[in-house]
Amino acid sequence: MQHKKKEEYIYGTRAIIEAIQAGKEIEKLLVQKDVKNELISELLTLCRERQLPVTRVPLEKLNRVTRKNHQGTIAYISAITYASLDHIISSTYEKGETPLLLVLDRVTDVRNFGAIARSAECAGAHGIIVPAKGSAQINSDAVKTSAGALHYLPVFRSPNLKETLKELQNNGIQLVACTEKGSDSLYDKDLKDPIALIMGSEEDGISHDYLRIADHMCQLPIKGRIESLNVGVAASIALYEVVRQRG
Amino acid sequence: MQHKKKEEYIYGTRAIIEAIQAGKEIEKLLVQKDVKNELISELLTLCRERQLPVTRVPLEKLNRVTRKNHQGTIAYISAITYASLDHIISSTYEKGETPLLLVLDRVTDVRNFGAIARSAECAGAHGIIVPAKGSAQINSDAVKTSAGALHYLPVFRSPNLKETLKELQNNGIQLVACTEKGSDSLYDKDLKDPIALIMGSEEDGISHDYLRIADHMCQLPIKGRIESLNVGVAASIALYEVVRQRG
Repeated sequence: MQHKKKEEYIYGTRAIIEAIQAGKEIEKLLVQKDVKNELISELLTLCRERQLPVTRVPLEKLNRVTRKNHQGTIAYISAITYASLDHIISSTYEKGETPLLLVLDRVTDVRNFGAIARSAECAGAHGIIVPAKGSAQINSDAVKTSAGALHYLPVFRSPNLKETLKELQNNGIQLVACTEKGSDSLYDKDLKDPIALIMGSEEDGISHDYLRIADHMCQLPIKGRIESLNVGVAASIALYEVVRQRG
Repeated sequence: MQHKKKEEYIYGTRAIIEAIQAGKEIEKLLVQKDVKNELISELLTLCRERQLPVTRVPLEKLNRVTRKNHQGTIAYISAITYASLDHIISSTYEKGETPLLLVLDRVTDVRNFGAIARSAECAGAHGIIVPAKGSAQINSDAVKTSAGALHYLPVFRSPNLKETLKELQNNGIQLVACTEKGSDSLYDKDLKDPIALIMGSEEDGISHDYLRIADHMCQLPIKGRIESLNVGVAASIALYEVVRQRG
């Protein structure tokens, strides 16, 4: 397991509850399996209300993070402040710009995530959307790899990515899935309209659920023997094709 | 310093001389400062003949690599077999393809180098050209990050990059420098002719010597507040713009 800097997590149920109530952004909460008490129930209720991701883990996992008196709960603090989808969309239209969003379906590698954020900011994207569960932790490494882009580029953490994708469509934003399964070349697609590019994990691409509702499935041509581009590179090429087309 | 796997270097002057004579590819040779003897002179002469990069280092540096009896010399073995420029150019024309080469001026990060090789192979590039000195070491990490692309994509290690660039021009290959100093957008440049894209280090871009002889200086538009793209990402976007234009 990666070494965590002390300032990136807090421990102890009461301390975590207070941090959440004080408005601290929680990246992920680890709660010891099979432990029940009133305080933990209060914390879990709070997490449900705020839609914060909770993972139940064995005691050993918590002990590997800290040997201090964690009482069965450790919360990782986000290195950034998350944005709401409404805010991302409305501020884009307020600026008179055509939405360019990036949806990352289970991109779990922290450095890939940071690198993608850097490219997205350079390409003038308006926000990144990630699922609350199964995404890269946005920690100081992610911010560093992003060259600071994560301080400027809003990130929305969706509790239900499928619903979020439908909401994008309801807002007039087309879903363009970048996938090897796409029959059209991305270069043949008109990208001047409001769009959200969807990129999938390097392991198994974009989830079928999201492919099914996407408006377009496009691929990048592969000319060599290596089967696929790195997801961060593919995202950057796709973002810059939008930049090129919009001129 | 990064931990080196045992198989990636050899030590001892006689052993290194024999390895070179047996045709082993040497990535880089470390020779202890202020040490002179007949065997080392023989080794240095051999390195000059074969144009292998030699670095003079203090004893402590050698001791940090191995505590064994290195006798003042350690040679890193290349994880790949280098190609000649002639071979790269002639095999491209033999295939009836339009040359697409990538010149990396002092890209020193091993993972960046590997990532660029992966994209270059996917884009159907015909080879990568690096200077013999001041380039990323092509070790097993580079090959791994390249997703194996370095097994397919020829790399030419130039003892004199300026001469090599002129040789490319003499072979009808245009030099397109990708630099923030470029006044034209890469998207406005016709990339269908034989070209070599030049990318510079993330720290200080492309050397003035090479910018001066480049046929074109082009930039990628930056729409956000972050000043620049990662060099690997920029290289990938440029390579794929060639793919798009050549169709």
